[in-house]
Amino acid sequence: MTHRGLVAAVDVGGTAIKGILMDASHSAVARRDVPTPRQGPDAVFDCVQELVDRLLDETATGTSRLAGVGVAVPGIVDDHTGTAHVSANLGWREVLARSELANRFTAPVVLTQDVRAAGLAESHLGAARSADDALVVPVGTGIAGALVVDGRLVTGGGYAGELGHVVVDPSGEPCTCGSRGCLETIASARAIARRYGVRAGADASAREVAAAVAGGDRVAREVWSEATEALATVLATCVTVLGSEVIVLGGGLSGAGRLLLDPVRTGLEERLTFQRRPQVVAAALGELAGCLGAGLLAWEQVV
Amino acid sequence: MTHRGLVAAVDVGGTAIKGILMDASHSAVARRDVPTPRQGPDAVFDCVQELVDRLLDETATGTSRLAGVGVAVPGIVDDHTGTAHVSANLGWREVLARSELANRFTAPVVLTQDVRAAGLAESHLGAARSADDALVVPVGTGIAGALVVDGRLVTGGGYAGELGHVVVDPSGEPCTCGSRGCLETIASARAIARRYGVRAGADASAREVAAAVAGGDRVAREVWSEATEALATVLATCVTVLGSEVIVLGGGLSGAGRLLLDPVRTGLEERLTFQRRPQVVAAALGELAGCLGAGLLAWEQVV
Repeated sequence: MTHRGLVAAVDVGGTAIKGILMDASHSAVARRDVPTPRQGPDAVFDCVQELVDRLLDETATGTSRLAGVGVAVPGIVDDHTGTAHVSANLGWREVLARSELANRFTAPVVLTQDVRAAGLAESHLGAARSADDALVVPVGTGIAGALVVDGRLVTGGGYAGELGHVVVDPSGEPCTCGSRGCLETIASARAIARRYGVRAGADASAREVAAAVAGGDRVAREVWSEATEALATVLATCVTVLGSEVIVLGGGLSGAGRLLLDPVRTGLEERLTFQRRPQVVAAALGELAGCLGAGLLAWEQVV
Repeated sequence: MTHRGLVAAVDVGGTAIKGILMDASHSAVARRDVPTPRQGPDAVFDCVQELVDRLLDETATGTSRLAGVGVAVPGIVDDHTGTAHVSANLGWREVLARSELANRFTAPVVLTQDVRAAGLAESHLGAARSADDALVVPVGTGIAGALVVDGRLVTGGGYAGELGHVVVDPSGEPCTCGSRGCLETIASARAIARRYGVRAGADASAREVAAAVAGGDRVAREVWSEATEALATVLATCVTVLGSEVIVLGGGLSGAGRLLLDPVRTGLEERLTFQRRPQVVAAALGELAGCLGAGLLAWEQVV
């Protein structure tokens, strides 16, 4: 018999908090977004509680039907202890988020990281649903990764999946992490915009650089090609280590479609010899992936 | 109540087949080694069967007490399907090893890869037993890796853990895998011996190079330092991706002790910024690690 309850799933981002109610068949039955408050963790937790209350009200769902709450936050998050060690986008350090949230709900609360939540969702409901072993890589302002192994997420105590900080060029540009030449300094949307700006002497977003690539702009092509080569290098390393079957590229840059996918595919083809040959595909679930993953995780714990 | 049965665990190597009987407390109660026959898979399976029979005879153990059989083989091995896709050391390709072995025993048979078996043993009984997330890296003729995540091995359909084929220097020496500048071409025992030979104009084994390093030989120091730097580079990448707590260095080269461990530790220290800081330790179980891991796996399936 299908569970009649609902799970509330919330994705706390640097600018917005997105919430959904998810039924036992993993469909979102209601959605609401609010801006992220700037007054620290407590204000965020209050806001999450209010958001869930509103979703329940709107759908005339009694609190007793709330079977669980899944919350995803950015940064280095330990699912086991429910701690957000570092969430730069929220200005958090060592926040015991799960227990704080648990005080605000009668239903059980699970905490996870936004990238892993999105990875879980793509793996169970989205672009990697045919694969046991997948790599879900959001390429946006930064670059992160969710590793799915035998259908399960790799957490590494909250430290796993930091693909953006694999060093590609030890003598490259300084990275915010303190190292040099990290993937993020070459292939993130922010890096592409910056590197184009420096060389072309003109401001452009990564999206505009992508358009310029399609239009034949020489500098844009150079910057774009360096980005996709760096991505292919790091993904080839990941495949060699993990044996991934599917690589899902998400985040803002994946909006470029084949302009991103094709050179990454070719770059992998050139680099791999005996290794597993992964499919490279675009993310399927869009901006709700984090919510859906937090909801899936809550359902896993509840049932 | 403790299980009264025994598990037979066999590690099939390129030159020798090692076998043990393992009790429910995971102790080896008998051991026997035989040379690996050269006449193909069937001869190897017959030899494994005979080896197990001898172990049972020697210990006056009735076949009815044999609760399971665990067999580890080298190469690309899919535990789920029980297939050895490629075992270069044995000259095997697409060998359905588990079902062949199952025909020879009444007890259930599990098949795995030798490196993962050793990794499981180090993780449950050896140098990584305190850690949920470990990386076990045998550095010998080649370089391989077993990834332990949340206490479980990552298989990647048999393709996971190929650390020796992570590219460190794209313009480096050709590798047997068809790529260039793989870790194995710089940091394996074979590579160290070869690189020293070329530069010093004198034949020496990796062990002799290590002795020459300790004795202050300039060329030996150069070759050794390139090897440990390359190892640190790849291990730093793995830690960034996996969040490993412990790195266990095994294989022949780990016999060098601190001569290997210290520069790898320093190299990691230099490369990591916000990432988890793994302990770097030497393997604890020696040459029986593969057998012990195959036995553990058999016990997991049996009980």
